[in-house]
Amino acid sequence: MLYHIKVLVYLKDGVLDTQGKAVLGTLHRMNYTELKDIRIGKYLQLWIEAPDKETAKKRVVEMCSDLLVNDLIEDYSIEVDDIS
Amino acid sequence: MLYHIKVLVYLKDGVLDTQGKAVLGTLHRMNYTELKDIRIGKYLQLWIEAPDKETAKKRVVEMCSDLLVNDLIEDYSIEVDDIS
Repeated sequence: MLYHIKVLVYLKDGVLDTQGKAVLGTLHRMNYTELKDIRIGKYLQLWIEAPDKETAKKRVVEMCSDLLVNDLIEDYSIEVDDIS
Repeated sequence: MLYHIKVLVYLKDGVLDTQGKAVLGTLHRMNYTELKDIRIGKYLQLWIEAPDKETAKKRVVEMCSDLLVNDLIEDYSIEVDDIS
């Protein structure tokens, strides 16, 4: 069965987001002064064949720890949708 | 009032995701052959002062069209949480 899995990867609290700070400065110069902060992470969409939802999720967790997430500075959340 | 807004930015269907293809190849070489596809987008978290939810969302939509989203090749979705 094919599963569509959404993974949100974001910097842990306290980790300096240099990209976010740069974008914040630009938006302030564009007069969006009410913006207090912006943090930029990754939105991963994966399509994976698996016998069931748990196996699909388990494999994505393995991919996250192997490659997709730097667990020194990043956290992530996973959402599993089944397609067919 | 401070609002926490989450924006998911992702490539439109049909737009080649070169980054996604590169990661897919790496994961296949790491024996995650059941992975059919992966598409990589941006997960933006914004904290914005606004009198109400609609105004907060409206301003973020403006920021998206002004800077945060390239609407030629990207789509996005917005989710508004209020904090206090």
